[in-house]
Amino acid sequence: MTQASRTIGVMEAIRRQLATRALMPGERLPSIRRFATVMGVSPSTVVEAYDRLAAEGVIRSRPGSGFYVLGAAPSLDLRAPAPPQEQEVDPFWVSRQSLDADADVLKPGCGWLPPDWMPQAAMRRALRQLARGPDAVLTDYGSSLGPLNLRRILGRQFADEGLDISPESILLTTSGSQSIDLICRYHLRPGDTVLVDDPCYFNFQALLRIYKARIISVRFTPAGPDLQAFADMLGQHRPRLYITNSALHNPTGGTITPQTAHRLLKLAAEHDLTIIEDDTFAVLEPDLSPRLATLDGLERVIRIGSFSKTLSASVRCGYIAGQPDLIAALTDLQVATNFGGPSPVATEIVTSTLSDGSYRKHVEGIRRRLAGARKTTVARLAHMGIEPWLMPRGGFYLWCTLPEGIEAAEIARAARRRNVVLAPGNIFSPAQTAASFMRFNVSQMHERAWGVLAEVMAAPQVRND
Amino acid sequence: MTQASRTIGVMEAIRRQLATRALMPGERLPSIRRFATVMGVSPSTVVEAYDRLAAEGVIRSRPGSGFYVLGAAPSLDLRAPAPPQEQEVDPFWVSRQSLDADADVLKPGCGWLPPDWMPQAAMRRALRQLARGPDAVLTDYGSSLGPLNLRRILGRQFADEGLDISPESILLTTSGSQSIDLICRYHLRPGDTVLVDDPCYFNFQALLRIYKARIISVRFTPAGPDLQAFADMLGQHRPRLYITNSALHNPTGGTITPQTAHRLLKLAAEHDLTIIEDDTFAVLEPDLSPRLATLDGLERVIRIGSFSKTLSASVRCGYIAGQPDLIAALTDLQVATNFGGPSPVATEIVTSTLSDGSYRKHVEGIRRRLAGARKTTVARLAHMGIEPWLMPRGGFYLWCTLPEGIEAAEIARAARRRNVVLAPGNIFSPAQTAASFMRFNVSQMHERAWGVLAEVMAAPQVRND
Repeated sequence: MTQASRTIGVMEAIRRQLATRALMPGERLPSIRRFATVMGVSPSTVVEAYDRLAAEGVIRSRPGSGFYVLGAAPSLDLRAPAPPQEQEVDPFWVSRQSLDADADVLKPGCGWLPPDWMPQAAMRRALRQLARGPDAVLTDYGSSLGPLNLRRILGRQFADEGLDISPESILLTTSGSQSIDLICRYHLRPGDTVLVDDPCYFNFQALLRIYKARIISVRFTPAGPDLQAFADMLGQHRPRLYITNSALHNPTGGTITPQTAHRLLKLAAEHDLTIIEDDTFAVLEPDLSPRLATLDGLERVIRIGSFSKTLSASVRCGYIAGQPDLIAALTDLQVATNFGGPSPVATEIVTSTLSDGSYRKHVEGIRRRLAGARKTTVARLAHMGIEPWLMPRGGFYLWCTLPEGIEAAEIARAARRRNVVLAPGNIFSPAQTAASFMRFNVSQMHERAWGVLAEVMAAPQVRND
Repeated sequence: MTQASRTIGVMEAIRRQLATRALMPGERLPSIRRFATVMGVSPSTVVEAYDRLAAEGVIRSRPGSGFYVLGAAPSLDLRAPAPPQEQEVDPFWVSRQSLDADADVLKPGCGWLPPDWMPQAAMRRALRQLARGPDAVLTDYGSSLGPLNLRRILGRQFADEGLDISPESILLTTSGSQSIDLICRYHLRPGDTVLVDDPCYFNFQALLRIYKARIISVRFTPAGPDLQAFADMLGQHRPRLYITNSALHNPTGGTITPQTAHRLLKLAAEHDLTIIEDDTFAVLEPDLSPRLATLDGLERVIRIGSFSKTLSASVRCGYIAGQPDLIAALTDLQVATNFGGPSPVATEIVTSTLSDGSYRKHVEGIRRRLAGARKTTVARLAHMGIEPWLMPRGGFYLWCTLPEGIEAAEIARAARRRNVVLAPGNIFSPAQTAASFMRFNVSQMHERAWGVLAEVMAAPQVRND
């Protein structure tokens, strides 16, 4: 990356913070030294970027005290938005690129299965059944907790895993992301500290930025978070929340060991830490790994999840399992912000699909198919010198190191210009330690994606074209 | 209401603020004088309530400085939740009572039409069509702005009303409430001042409490907000936002006059005020009234709405129309908090129903049916001495005064014990000026509701039983 493009990168990061109101009028910009570390550039690059933003009238310098955001009105980026290929590679990058990709764009960087892996027949059956269903389901608002029958189905599933809770401990929501958002609304105030894994799901960072939370991170090892670092972080920073995936962790595919889970919960209890366990991928495990929520009995762990990965991401439905008093408060928050829970049309489709005996077989089929795709993908990546950090027990992610000297963000930008969306490591890394990592979705490795990957890996001039 | 029940009411209001984190550990409670005004009780009632909460260990008094919330952990109400009939009559009351009502509960207080008024046949057609639709729509995440074809349909509808904007100025969301929530996330910081009408939709207050906004209000007259008071409020309090329904205002059914709309926009421009115009009910007008967004051309007005009132509240889909740069920022916020826009299953159903020629006829049918129901309801209410504040041009609300000396909250509690949910005036009134008002939904006045209303209106001993 050239000096000029690094400067533009820093400018765009600041503009993005202004647009999402992570930085507000009158506020001080991050110090030059700190922002240089965050962005992985030299301090002089940040100085140049700030100077140029000051020249544009976006910020201004107060000698001896730093740079400040100008203006009392919301400060927006009024220029035409950058074309998708040239957008800043930040925690929003993969979401934007994957959600809004044209049909001819391939997405080995995205976080979902292709439509032909999903239970289309069951979905169509559920829709036809709904078309004959009662009037009220088709047109009324739903109940504020979501329908009891679906909460009972979830309760039985949790009981099978050893977590015995009442349906009043379960709130249905619009999505897994919205579940985390509701909990953050309840728990966080601007400036609160939140602990995440390094690396972690990029949208945790995007969401926490909106809350103006201070994000700290702990290295994720093949056995789970590094416990010594975890203990140090709790002692030093007293985070209010820890957000993690303990089973089939995104992006690494790792799963916490029973020993780590037990010790982590002891540390959490000592420091009065609340944990959000995002269980989105756990259903893809071949067999059940220890779950924080189960060990803890939902004392200080809040379990969230959705049906987006194995049933449908189009039918939006997630859940939160927690203490009844927490659920009651979150229910009021959901009513105020969305007037009620998830769509009854959506919950009916989920309920009838989950009740259908075919769903379990479908999930087993996906697990087998993913195991095969993981093997093939690992073998083909090896030919390019790309190695998995660990071989996951399940799921669709491979977290890989690129050959020495190759930067993932450059590869991702070059691939995007060739209509392939990749997921470069640093978008997952709060500490920006994953510049040479890439996350691959083994279900989305179409032949043309392999061709583009080979092309952009091979030649520096291609990457910088 | 007895002194004891007033005290309990104040205690529950504080507990609710703790549960929704409107009050946080360490924070000072509202002053006794101010909270007495807000709750419409005497200062001695607030003193007693605070003393009892202090005895329970929920708050503590610091002599000379007021009362403070105890504890560093989230302060939750750990008692069993009150049964629905006994819950505090606050801005959440009608939502909770109506959303979670059993089938045998009637809801003249709710904000929607009964299922048999809704376009069931068109909904069923849309579901059957979807069951034959493309795979990706059934299982993929949608695009971040929502599908272009539905944004185009909305754009054409706006153009017919004189508001000519591009589809890039429209963001599809999960609901009308979520539309307002996204805009508040973008515009508000704790302590910001927001102006609403008195009375206004109760959920505006519930949402603004979550944002810890300072809520100020301006009297709504039959011609729109009182302009002199509006100008004074802007001058004195410099609110960041004004949230209103300018057509078929909730709860009054009033519609802003062209003169008021024009002057209001001039005042807004002078004071750099942003306006959220919630257009939820406007489609029920017999013909088009002046709309703030149209007059203003979306310069400082953000238009929001949904399809919940005339198509389906179960299929959750709302929209935001605003400046493209605002829409871009809100799109990122929606991705971070909900991973994408509304459900593609939902937007497909809305699109195919709106494209169907039958929808326009359906809406015309509802308008005629509502006009009839309004007349009948007004006549029957007159027999009980209940008078509409104005006769609305359309919609399903009648905002009425009760006979001298009858308090709406008492009537609502007594009716709730008889399985009828009513909407007492003060839940709509930030200034608590509507204790003798009641909002009736003319589409939900079943015969048994009339019986219960007559019974609770007739006898003081029934109201206090």
